[in-house]
Amino acid sequence: MQTEGIDARRAVEELKELADLTGGPDGARRVAWTGQWAKAREWLRRKLDEIDCEIETDEAGNLWATAPGDSESAVVLGGHIDSVPNGGWLDGALNVIGALEVFRVLAPQQRPVTLRLVDWADEEGARFGRSLFGSSAAAGTLKPDDVRDFKDKDGIALPDALREHGVELDRMNEANGQLRNAAAYLELHIEQGPVLERMDLPLGVVLGTFGVERHAVRFAGQQAHSGSTPMDARKDAFVAAARSATEFRDDAARRDDVRATTGFVNVSPGIVTAFNGWCEMSLDQRALNAEELADMLRTARETSERVAGEEGVSVEWERLWQIEPIPFDEDLIELAEEAVNEVAGKSHRLPSGPLHDAAEMARLMPTVMLFVKSLRGLSHTKEEDTPEEDLELSVQALHRLAVRTMDWVAKGA
Amino acid sequence: MQTEGIDARRAVEELKELADLTGGPDGARRVAWTGQWAKAREWLRRKLDEIDCEIETDEAGNLWATAPGDSESAVVLGGHIDSVPNGGWLDGALNVIGALEVFRVLAPQQRPVTLRLVDWADEEGARFGRSLFGSSAAAGTLKPDDVRDFKDKDGIALPDALREHGVELDRMNEANGQLRNAAAYLELHIEQGPVLERMDLPLGVVLGTFGVERHAVRFAGQQAHSGSTPMDARKDAFVAAARSATEFRDDAARRDDVRATTGFVNVSPGIVTAFNGWCEMSLDQRALNAEELADMLRTARETSERVAGEEGVSVEWERLWQIEPIPFDEDLIELAEEAVNEVAGKSHRLPSGPLHDAAEMARLMPTVMLFVKSLRGLSHTKEEDTPEEDLELSVQALHRLAVRTMDWVAKGA
Repeated sequence: MQTEGIDARRAVEELKELADLTGGPDGARRVAWTGQWAKAREWLRRKLDEIDCEIETDEAGNLWATAPGDSESAVVLGGHIDSVPNGGWLDGALNVIGALEVFRVLAPQQRPVTLRLVDWADEEGARFGRSLFGSSAAAGTLKPDDVRDFKDKDGIALPDALREHGVELDRMNEANGQLRNAAAYLELHIEQGPVLERMDLPLGVVLGTFGVERHAVRFAGQQAHSGSTPMDARKDAFVAAARSATEFRDDAARRDDVRATTGFVNVSPGIVTAFNGWCEMSLDQRALNAEELADMLRTARETSERVAGEEGVSVEWERLWQIEPIPFDEDLIELAEEAVNEVAGKSHRLPSGPLHDAAEMARLMPTVMLFVKSLRGLSHTKEEDTPEEDLELSVQALHRLAVRTMDWVAKGA
Repeated sequence: MQTEGIDARRAVEELKELADLTGGPDGARRVAWTGQWAKAREWLRRKLDEIDCEIETDEAGNLWATAPGDSESAVVLGGHIDSVPNGGWLDGALNVIGALEVFRVLAPQQRPVTLRLVDWADEEGARFGRSLFGSSAAAGTLKPDDVRDFKDKDGIALPDALREHGVELDRMNEANGQLRNAAAYLELHIEQGPVLERMDLPLGVVLGTFGVERHAVRFAGQQAHSGSTPMDARKDAFVAAARSATEFRDDAARRDDVRATTGFVNVSPGIVTAFNGWCEMSLDQRALNAEELADMLRTARETSERVAGEEGVSVEWERLWQIEPIPFDEDLIELAEEAVNEVAGKSHRLPSGPLHDAAEMARLMPTVMLFVKSLRGLSHTKEEDTPEEDLELSVQALHRLAVRTMDWVAKGA
């Protein structure tokens, strides 16, 4: 077992160094396809330059470092250095810098398989609205025509912004070549939720990413005056929405580890002197089991239709987005659990609510993720934080998982 | 009984004439303190010029016509010719033009008491946001300092707009002098609700105007990611608001002829990928009985606090506005019912949900209102309508009520 040389403290110091360089009192500002992002990547590249490895940027803008091993089969450690505006110091950056430390230690060693580090381009989608950009371009699930017409809030077209960073939209799927010999994918990330903190555990092993069903639910009744219209003569679209939203939540709360969230809520006319003739709201449902997700959606539709009938309004659903549940590899989940148990004494298996680049990789190769505790479940804000001792444990666990995975790949190869 | 000479058809034709002059395909455009409003009033003044009466505009911009009788004690017929933007052809105008027809017929006749017509200035408050402007200025319940700093959406100050129409803000309360000999106040209005239509009745007698308790109710929890936060770890402000709004409605529905309305609803962050840490909504409660209104408010507060506790969020209430219930005069309600029964065969007593200038007058003198059916309960829109035969009945009923009320005042004087 090659555990010598890992310096988890150095990873924490490098996280702070990056935060000093591209963060500040208003949070991280490493939005992909901007100068601050390029600055962060130059910093990363300087760190990689000190390691004996091959460095390249692929056709989708993903940055790769490769330390060849006895076999071309590669274990890939992934993360993303980009952030949301006013983001936290850990979301994405921990994966990259944790992987950097593991790569730094393992690259000079004799290894049965190749080890690679990837910094995915634009995981957050903060500027153009398409998350998992680089990883899905490499995986082939994102096509140029899907995003060709996207513009940022200043009207700048996505292809023009990419070109400034050396990426030609129509060639981005050629990044798929990078995955030719990839045999396993590992990613460390902050949990972005409260589960580990509530269990007082530093680390957990991720079972997979939730499937998502995301809809706009629109109720239409007839607005009228708040004073002149008796209660039993109303077709109040907001009341129908409010009752439905409550039932959506209650249904999810009765199930095991699923989610149902009302996000945006818009009413019309939205004034004090009338009840609302129109209300739309979003419903975002998530589950790790595809059948359960389908059942949640079916139940919610039926609920909304029953409530709409009782309130004398109509209801329509529009799908905004969906993705199937993506379970991680069972063997790698076992290895990850061993690694976590070794460094933290105890582990916990949990699903990932947010999507990650790992979801794109899991379509193509055995994949697993490690989660480290988030304080108060916060992320995508400068308040995002994790105790430094837990960050150190997470880098140690990633190291042990990487070593185990290389052995596992070598045995299978 | 002086019923000869009333020409209800003429009133309907004059309503159409006014609509042609100051309305059109986008609805009425007689917003107070604008050129279209002044144009409507010139039209009214020309109609009054054909009647033997005294015409004057008071210090608050209210237009008065007076036909003296044997006594200075006066029965006042009131309405407002101003409208909301894109308003209907009847809201306000029916009162003025119905009263004009009654005044036209009764003015030349020998009468025991004085008869007056008033066109109140700015009942709607559409430009500056203060409704019942002219009537409350005359009643003394509106003080110059309450509105001195009001501006319209173009930034024009209320005192400047008034001055263009000959009104000095600091003198507007002198309009109170007009009410010195006023002994009774009568007002005809469209119902603006669905009650009479649902009962298939053309006319009703108004018991008074609802008291109103209007609050902003604000729930504060903690927003977090829709995927990463388990259902039992959420402090979802919108769910707390939705549950409360449903209970507010249900409580009102269990009571007799009261109202509870959620109007504006704002959430934060209001995005698909997070549940809401903050939600504010308006609650507008109305009842004709002050004790019941107080009980409704108390119940709603308790409900919101219980729900907030269950959802792990906090709740705060801010009063936006309140007005006590204003019951109309019991004798005049009797007379109004007789008048309605005579012209329509059947009457119905109902509260007024919306406020009217009559509420300001009822603080000072015996007051009653007649309602005529609204189709589909619509008002403040160009779709506002009432069958013409019902409009004719309403003018006939106002005439009979005016005659009865003059006799009633004469007997009491």
